[in-house]
Amino acid sequence: MEKIKIGIVGYGNLGRGVESGLSQNPDMELVGVFTRRGPDAVKTATGASVYSMEALTSFRGNIDVMVLCGGSKSDLPEQGPAVAAQFNTVDSYDTHAKVPEYYESVGRAARGAGTTSIISVGWDPGLFSILRVYGEAVLPEGQTHTFWGKGVSQGHSDAIRRVPGVRAGVQYTVPVESAIQAARSGEGSASLTTRDKHQRDCYVVLEDNADEAEVADAIKTMPDYFADYDTTVHFITEEQLQHEHGAMPHGGFVIRNAKSGGGASHSVEFSLKLESNPEFTASVLVAYARAAYRLNQAGIVGAQTVFDVPPGMLSVKTGEALRKGLL
Amino acid sequence: MEKIKIGIVGYGNLGRGVESGLSQNPDMELVGVFTRRGPDAVKTATGASVYSMEALTSFRGNIDVMVLCGGSKSDLPEQGPAVAAQFNTVDSYDTHAKVPEYYESVGRAARGAGTTSIISVGWDPGLFSILRVYGEAVLPEGQTHTFWGKGVSQGHSDAIRRVPGVRAGVQYTVPVESAIQAARSGEGSASLTTRDKHQRDCYVVLEDNADEAEVADAIKTMPDYFADYDTTVHFITEEQLQHEHGAMPHGGFVIRNAKSGGGASHSVEFSLKLESNPEFTASVLVAYARAAYRLNQAGIVGAQTVFDVPPGMLSVKTGEALRKGLL
Repeated sequence: MEKIKIGIVGYGNLGRGVESGLSQNPDMELVGVFTRRGPDAVKTATGASVYSMEALTSFRGNIDVMVLCGGSKSDLPEQGPAVAAQFNTVDSYDTHAKVPEYYESVGRAARGAGTTSIISVGWDPGLFSILRVYGEAVLPEGQTHTFWGKGVSQGHSDAIRRVPGVRAGVQYTVPVESAIQAARSGEGSASLTTRDKHQRDCYVVLEDNADEAEVADAIKTMPDYFADYDTTVHFITEEQLQHEHGAMPHGGFVIRNAKSGGGASHSVEFSLKLESNPEFTASVLVAYARAAYRLNQAGIVGAQTVFDVPPGMLSVKTGEALRKGLL
Repeated sequence: MEKIKIGIVGYGNLGRGVESGLSQNPDMELVGVFTRRGPDAVKTATGASVYSMEALTSFRGNIDVMVLCGGSKSDLPEQGPAVAAQFNTVDSYDTHAKVPEYYESVGRAARGAGTTSIISVGWDPGLFSILRVYGEAVLPEGQTHTFWGKGVSQGHSDAIRRVPGVRAGVQYTVPVESAIQAARSGEGSASLTTRDKHQRDCYVVLEDNADEAEVADAIKTMPDYFADYDTTVHFITEEQLQHEHGAMPHGGFVIRNAKSGGGASHSVEFSLKLESNPEFTASVLVAYARAAYRLNQAGIVGAQTVFDVPPGMLSVKTGEALRKGLL
């Protein structure tokens, strides 16, 4: 079997996750990792070759799909279209509000080049988005609620660290159990907002001489981030932070509660419990890299999202095997 | 907006569910119901016209998709290919073991006619199948467990009714809570069989003079159906049967427990709680009728399964609206 040749662009947590994820997929092989750092400074876990971003173009024809592992804020808006103009790509672009704009910009580049780019892959956007669409399509009259957590929110952790007196900290977004129950039963769930559905648990290491009460107050009253949420602040030591909060667990729920045409009530629920958020996201990216390759082989070019990809295209199995074994 | 014109073939619980489901989808309209009974004998809930099966052919060009609502045992093996030779179709064929054969036979008819037929639509086969594929594709190394219930099993209810001394009865398949926990945690779940995962609760109305102990024993020792399961038999009156067991609730779980390439553990879970099994299945059929129409418009003909249908194709919304609102 001719293997699908994969390149990784960017070698942080996500890039490392893609590298280890590829080892679970016998129909794909990693050709190389591309980095903006000096290639000599990067040691890959599997010993895969590392190249500078400048070398990327020379791999045209030798790499089937580039998995873009940069961040949504500054890396992908630039890299997405630039790499799509030369290779099939998948990425985890997750700035929800700017997806339409990003879709346009990547799509233009990909259509021009005859490549296929699947954007915003992962779990949200990604699998959660898919479940929101399935839920709404099969039960048009009802409510969908998404819950995130328990898991670390990067944006809120950054916000904590900007508070004077804080040396380090992480913030966990935690779904509120009573809100989950309401979403499941449909009772009183219509008016639930993101704020009603989540609470925020902060673990903070103080600077020497900083005042606990002042820092806690500054966090809890911070507009947008914490003021309107049920927020708890725990003070811990540097050692506790490292030992107890070094992992990157995450997860959440998508719950659809609805009535079908004859009046019967139904509840559809999808949930994830992830020990490592970046490793799971990477694993989803790998499956969609397979789909990007196959879509391109089928002549379907341009920007795509998870909504455009038939489930079967993600699987290493043939359509026949899927029908026989999993239908 | 030009509406998608729908026909319903067969007017039992499922056909009635499709009729009421269509009322929730403003982009579709019901043209008529086709029945093997005398059309005058059938009164539709919405007043939709009823025609004999012989009239079907005269609707070519006036119906976009026929929703086949017959049973898998004898109706669909004959109707599936016959109707696919004239119309786009969707059906809920659910004899898992014979899917490949059915797929071939419908596919031959559909390819010859240039029509599109989505087979085995519903929740299992259907949404559960999709989740099994997503789970395995994004996490290749792990275990998937499917649980059914609590819900009425038609086959097992029929088996009870064949026992001498039984006047009427229903059987609920019930997932075993400890097995669900094992599937979620991954602990000890590798060896779980369908038998370990489900228990069987029977509600039986006796014939006059029948002996409770004898009937209970005959049920509990019945090979294949009950002997290897934890089976409970409750004796009830005819009235209780009608009042307490007349609904058709169902549901279940698909649980994937797996490790990603870097060794982190993840759990992916999809669950349904359905107040009416046929109404929900019908609602899924309606969404896939939209997809069958769109696939055919896109020139994709022949037999298809839920694995071949991009999620976005089920939605009444445009791709742009989906990316903006649900991604």
